[in-house]
Amino acid sequence: MAINTQVTADHNAPPITQILAKFVSSHPSKGWDDAVDHEAHRTFMNWLGCAVGAATHESVHATLGAVNEFKPAPQASILGRAEKVDMANAALINGISSHTFDFDDTHLKTIIHPAGPIASAILALGEHIGASGRDMIDALVIGIDVSCRIGNAMYPNHYDRGWHITGSTGTVGAAAACARLLQLSEAQTGMALGIAASQPIGFRDQFGTMTKPFHPGGAAKAGLTSALMAKHGFTASTKALEAPRGMIQSISTKYDWDEITNQLGERFEISLNTYKPFACGIVIHPSIDACVQLRNRGVTADNLERLELKAHSLVLELTGKKTPKDGLEGKFSVYHGAACGIVYGQATEDQYHDDVVQSAQMVALRAKVIATVDNTIDEASVDVTAYLKDGQKIHIFVENAIGSLKNPMTDAHLNQKFSNLSVPIIGKVNTDALIAKCWDLKNLTSLQDLLKFSKPI
Amino acid sequence: MAINTQVTADHNAPPITQILAKFVSSHPSKGWDDAVDHEAHRTFMNWLGCAVGAATHESVHATLGAVNEFKPAPQASILGRAEKVDMANAALINGISSHTFDFDDTHLKTIIHPAGPIASAILALGEHIGASGRDMIDALVIGIDVSCRIGNAMYPNHYDRGWHITGSTGTVGAAAACARLLQLSEAQTGMALGIAASQPIGFRDQFGTMTKPFHPGGAAKAGLTSALMAKHGFTASTKALEAPRGMIQSISTKYDWDEITNQLGERFEISLNTYKPFACGIVIHPSIDACVQLRNRGVTADNLERLELKAHSLVLELTGKKTPKDGLEGKFSVYHGAACGIVYGQATEDQYHDDVVQSAQMVALRAKVIATVDNTIDEASVDVTAYLKDGQKIHIFVENAIGSLKNPMTDAHLNQKFSNLSVPIIGKVNTDALIAKCWDLKNLTSLQDLLKFSKPI
Repeated sequence: MAINTQVTADHNAPPITQILAKFVSSHPSKGWDDAVDHEAHRTFMNWLGCAVGAATHESVHATLGAVNEFKPAPQASILGRAEKVDMANAALINGISSHTFDFDDTHLKTIIHPAGPIASAILALGEHIGASGRDMIDALVIGIDVSCRIGNAMYPNHYDRGWHITGSTGTVGAAAACARLLQLSEAQTGMALGIAASQPIGFRDQFGTMTKPFHPGGAAKAGLTSALMAKHGFTASTKALEAPRGMIQSISTKYDWDEITNQLGERFEISLNTYKPFACGIVIHPSIDACVQLRNRGVTADNLERLELKAHSLVLELTGKKTPKDGLEGKFSVYHGAACGIVYGQATEDQYHDDVVQSAQMVALRAKVIATVDNTIDEASVDVTAYLKDGQKIHIFVENAIGSLKNPMTDAHLNQKFSNLSVPIIGKVNTDALIAKCWDLKNLTSLQDLLKFSKPI
Repeated sequence: MAINTQVTADHNAPPITQILAKFVSSHPSKGWDDAVDHEAHRTFMNWLGCAVGAATHESVHATLGAVNEFKPAPQASILGRAEKVDMANAALINGISSHTFDFDDTHLKTIIHPAGPIASAILALGEHIGASGRDMIDALVIGIDVSCRIGNAMYPNHYDRGWHITGSTGTVGAAAACARLLQLSEAQTGMALGIAASQPIGFRDQFGTMTKPFHPGGAAKAGLTSALMAKHGFTASTKALEAPRGMIQSISTKYDWDEITNQLGERFEISLNTYKPFACGIVIHPSIDACVQLRNRGVTADNLERLELKAHSLVLELTGKKTPKDGLEGKFSVYHGAACGIVYGQATEDQYHDDVVQSAQMVALRAKVIATVDNTIDEASVDVTAYLKDGQKIHIFVENAIGSLKNPMTDAHLNQKFSNLSVPIIGKVNTDALIAKCWDLKNLTSLQDLLKFSKPI
């Protein structure tokens, strides 16, 4: 039993809930520059490809099995599948599938995966109410801004304490985005944020289980439902986010209100979004990148004696599984990531199948990796040295891995990633059409123009 | 911004999630004495009466409006109404209505209102799957034990930090009860608890708004859905409750594991449940009781000069609204509660209508009440002195208010309370039948025998 740690409450917080409600309900459509609008399209299409790619995963089957017990009305599409369910549960399922491969977008400042809760909520709602593509992009930018700004205010203490910050901030972001899509008034939007504020979702101990991707899915569903309740007159505290016994002060010992209010409506957190080249936790990416470079310089599983890998403590804390038992555990193993780089030169979902993770070659290679903590190295970097059997020694320092903000995936990279995920599920014809519609989202008058391609032919 | 308060994690917690999963899945039917079984019937019927009583409240209309947007299948009853909705949303709505009047049950050790999340979840699920009355009582006792034991482990720190402990512990309790009703295996039950553990709901800043009763409703819905997902193979951490970054350590700085494991299956927290005689927060009850006694000794709104009321700090912290603006705010005003005792000799839902709270007589009387903090007085007690205009002084000390564990409501009291709530909604004939069926729940082979009386004639 721990001792009571009394935290001093801040009784003088600015009116965060009302400030955000005003922003969400009144910021102009496309009230930002073209670069922000383009980043929103990149975020949307990367998210959608991830969801399609995991459409036949066991986590989706299990959730759909449960949802079908409710005999849902066929209101909204499940990405990558022919079935439709009610919009709340479509948001849940697409949120789960989009995060199942740990391959979705990352707001590196907070390690939030912003699209999962927001895009899943607004696609389901938007399909049902007949939203335009322009409405969707507006709601996406605004919803992501809300969740990431709340994340900025609480990070890192909130995350350190145990919360999966994607789900805990995602409910409010999803409610904001849905309130925007529903064109709720400022007062109603404040209520939507308030109802959502009582539903932060997710703890880090769930990493490595299906409940990790449940977090964005659950947040999407809860946010969408909160907005609909507000539309129908349900009430909440007008200071639900910032009050001493409101959400933020109850779940974080850090609450930097300036992170929420500074330049609100002028700069947008979606500009800081990144997309993964590798199908695993972002903190492993520098290590995979380094090992791909080693492979390109002739290192193989056979000629390697040992690999010394130095990284920030967070890397080993999050992904320190030295002997992963299956594909899912492999996602949380920097050792497996390094071995993928050397053997395959990549780390797509294929490298996280159980048989690959369990293969004798990979087990032996992971055993050669010696990872140590060095907190002088940034979380986004890694220092790797390969010692070969012939006495050769090759050193690689990766400062910014491919996919990072300073070394981003190009649009062409994103197309290739989307295809790799989507073609096995819905075929090449629909994949190509879907990619084209994603890039053209802002011009679509009906989401059906896009969603008709999101199923298997 | 507060400073970072680093809390030392407990890496050696007992396997709480697995211990509870074993208990939930394997404890024998009616594995307790007759007193516990009778208390379960009292808990169920008190909860059901509260839900029927609030069936036409605005909070129910607003929620039903939102739920109807999902075009729900008519699977489960809304208490006090003719409509049916899908079982998850029936759990939501009945959970909301049962707590709307702040008139439901209280586990005084933690201030948890245990029935809301648990009974709402199992009634909706039980109706749909055809559970027997015996199954219901078993699931109710076991689910309440899980949520209240988790509450005992975290109280008071968790509550002090800002959490509405009914919703934060209720999701796991509801998942436990639903897992029991679904006869899930021990492993599946562990997963149900684990999925639910990522969804604690509710902060205290919501008190006085519709989102307060949303907390037990949302917990009921989330717990039911978690159990169904586990049934279909969804996975979660096997130590989701107790891990350093699991639920309990992330949301409380106190975690007394013994409170969960001691005499598990031997003593039952439902034995500590109490039922409110007054339609407001439990901490006001001693004050109302005292003022009813003053009224019986001749004190009136006219002859009173001032009323000095000394109570524990928690009383004023929770219910310190001196000038409540409407009925809902009146529920959080010890001043209004005291005035009700003197003028009406009671505090039923009728005394919390807007026009009563706003009446000139009550405004004037509340202004005569001077409440001060005295932490030598227990939370369950109050010290009241009436100073009359004629110089007379009457002192009342209430140690245990009516409705407390030491001065409980009788079964006859509960029948009367149920009738007061239910007759205006569904009429006397159905009310009388419903009361009889509630007391006979353990013998019912079908819940339809009871639910057919839960609607307006």
